[in-house]
Amino acid sequence: MDIIKYPSKEQWEESLKRPALDTTFLFDKVESIINKVYTEGDKAVLEFEAQFDKVQLSNLLVSKEEMQDAESCVADDLKDAIRLAHKNIETFHAAQRFEGKKIETSPGVVCWQKAVAIDKVGLYIPGGTAPLFSTVLMLAVPAKIAGCREIVLCTPPNAAGKVHPAILFAASVAGVDKVFKIGGVQAIAAMAYGTESVPKVYKIFGPGNQYVTAAKQMVSLRDVAIDMPAGPSEVEVLADETANPIFVAADLISQAEHGVDSHSILITTSEALVDKVKIEVDRQLAQLPRRDIASKSLESSKLIVVNNMEEAIEMTNQYAPEHLIVQTGNYMDVADKVINAGSVFLGPYSPESAGDYASGTNHTLPTNGYAHAYSGVSLDSFIRKITFQELSSQGIANIGAAIEVMAQNESLYGHRNAVSVRLATIKTEK
Amino acid sequence: MDIIKYPSKEQWEESLKRPALDTTFLFDKVESIINKVYTEGDKAVLEFEAQFDKVQLSNLLVSKEEMQDAESCVADDLKDAIRLAHKNIETFHAAQRFEGKKIETSPGVVCWQKAVAIDKVGLYIPGGTAPLFSTVLMLAVPAKIAGCREIVLCTPPNAAGKVHPAILFAASVAGVDKVFKIGGVQAIAAMAYGTESVPKVYKIFGPGNQYVTAAKQMVSLRDVAIDMPAGPSEVEVLADETANPIFVAADLISQAEHGVDSHSILITTSEALVDKVKIEVDRQLAQLPRRDIASKSLESSKLIVVNNMEEAIEMTNQYAPEHLIVQTGNYMDVADKVINAGSVFLGPYSPESAGDYASGTNHTLPTNGYAHAYSGVSLDSFIRKITFQELSSQGIANIGAAIEVMAQNESLYGHRNAVSVRLATIKTEK
Repeated sequence: MDIIKYPSKEQWEESLKRPALDTTFLFDKVESIINKVYTEGDKAVLEFEAQFDKVQLSNLLVSKEEMQDAESCVADDLKDAIRLAHKNIETFHAAQRFEGKKIETSPGVVCWQKAVAIDKVGLYIPGGTAPLFSTVLMLAVPAKIAGCREIVLCTPPNAAGKVHPAILFAASVAGVDKVFKIGGVQAIAAMAYGTESVPKVYKIFGPGNQYVTAAKQMVSLRDVAIDMPAGPSEVEVLADETANPIFVAADLISQAEHGVDSHSILITTSEALVDKVKIEVDRQLAQLPRRDIASKSLESSKLIVVNNMEEAIEMTNQYAPEHLIVQTGNYMDVADKVINAGSVFLGPYSPESAGDYASGTNHTLPTNGYAHAYSGVSLDSFIRKITFQELSSQGIANIGAAIEVMAQNESLYGHRNAVSVRLATIKTEK
Repeated sequence: MDIIKYPSKEQWEESLKRPALDTTFLFDKVESIINKVYTEGDKAVLEFEAQFDKVQLSNLLVSKEEMQDAESCVADDLKDAIRLAHKNIETFHAAQRFEGKKIETSPGVVCWQKAVAIDKVGLYIPGGTAPLFSTVLMLAVPAKIAGCREIVLCTPPNAAGKVHPAILFAASVAGVDKVFKIGGVQAIAAMAYGTESVPKVYKIFGPGNQYVTAAKQMVSLRDVAIDMPAGPSEVEVLADETANPIFVAADLISQAEHGVDSHSILITTSEALVDKVKIEVDRQLAQLPRRDIASKSLESSKLIVVNNMEEAIEMTNQYAPEHLIVQTGNYMDVADKVINAGSVFLGPYSPESAGDYASGTNHTLPTNGYAHAYSGVSLDSFIRKITFQELSSQGIANIGAAIEVMAQNESLYGHRNAVSVRLATIKTEK
């Protein structure tokens, strides 16, 4: 962890630099897998499962029996925790429901938006050492609230052909319709194009390794929508002298354990805090099971001291962190000035872990500075707002002449004529 | 225009087929232009303007004098029309402002969303025979309402190095900050990466030819966000026996004049209507200045007769049209059942032209079936919703144990520890 003291503005970009991210170089490799799934369907998927997940499957769909068995395999304390998280995520996302208002923009011209769920959505949950049941909740709960008619989930099975019971339990609690034992690029391709078993969906959500990311990007170029571009996870802690160094250190480490390319930075107005945090990080790291990963990613981590809170906030908005933890005396004032971030955690008792699991906010968030342009996943991600307009004869009479003039000046005479024939009819009827 | 009568469900896909769309084959060509602008900035842009727009520019920025001159060159009737359209677009989009509510998901756990404008946005307005000042309004008005701090517009100049005065007037009315004389791929690259003259933006909006589309897709893979994937424009008219064939024909033609790859279809329950529409199309086409383009695109157009309104609506939702005009007796009932469309025009007096110019709805809409997953441009397109959460000590005490259990089961011990250190502190304080 490098300590950077009072960098000049010219040094900010370098100080805030993230690990590089570009998966487009994988497009060729990924494309051949996608194309095979596109043309051969289930057969190709089964072959790729044998090749990449080292498993011989007879059936891609998780059966009802497997879903029921899973419930009995999950410990009661975890079930209760998942149910609590589900309730909070549901409460927060249900409050995001949109009701369009009818607006009369000119007399007789009424316009409105209607929110409609995306009919079929696909959720990808990566495999690996730990079962990411929390991500199942974060994606399936808003999909269900939005009213998506079909919610499909793909996740790689283990070598025995099984999906972790906690993932199946979370899927069942959240209302996923179908779970498939498919991982990696073949999962993305199956959901993008459909196979004999897997329904074609219109939008694909979820994290994954660089191959999954590349596959999502490729299919998004012409076939389906995706949630957002993905990159390594990151946290910024913004703190002043009132912050508890134990909490700050724990927050930096919790991000660092995600993977060796995770990015944790501290921006603070307090030199004294930096020294205490550094000591605390070393102490806590020694006790962490995943210390190898965390130590490695903390190597690229920065502890940055700045002159004042104004500068700290400006630097924060330049960095645009996925997660921002604000541990300052006046944290609500700071919150007002944050304009670029994915999700913000305010005060001493709001660790990132709260939002990762159970506060109710979503944990699928823009990384890599994408918070400058993207929001995290929310109910909005699962709906579209269709616009409607209804013009009465009075309405077209009021704005028709303006439309005719504009259409003519854009040389679109057919557009003008579509108004003219209506105005002529109204005149005749009078 | 082919007439298709009572197709079976198996024939629907073929009946609704759009002209093919894929610009990824242009990536190599486009990449070399992007890279040159990325490394050489203004110098490269000026060279490409000489090469592609056949113009020697000394300055890329449209000057204040040019902006003022433009105002005096635009006819009064067009100015008034632009001002009326501006007012209606502003009224409708201002009503889309979002206020987040604070939600207490568990006692002491408060979550909310805050809408924040994307700081810098770039708008692209294509050149060509006609000045698309209407698109200037459609993109700049919501950007201004959202509160984007810098709104940049690029549009190709003519051979004399001038931008059409109606574009400059619309930009001025709508509150665009800077207009640059740059077209094509070099404009997209300049806004994506910034040059000495052009500010780097975080999101790029606007239509364009296939090169512009490819460039937007390429830069969106890692650098900036884009509004949505673009394809040829399209309209569906959904009509029953009550529809006026003159209006239906005018609406099909108005779409067809956009370009030879535009797509116009009629889905109707009335055989009699189809015959009348076909006659009317021929009659109106003969009088249309752009009949060469319109006739060409109408070749791929379909007039489809179905058995009943239910089938018509199902087929419509499968097609997911960019523009849907509903001319039926019960059009409000139909509106309730539309789940896939960009913008919907209800009743006899709501031609697509109304929404293209002046009703207040946006005309930047999802084509190519993307309406299954994407909304059109709206105020949402220019903001992000940042989530915030504030947990009190009571809040973390309430949900902390659940977070610890979930984190442990995902093998994320650092995440658990970030909660544990806080719970320990709270206990000590008691």
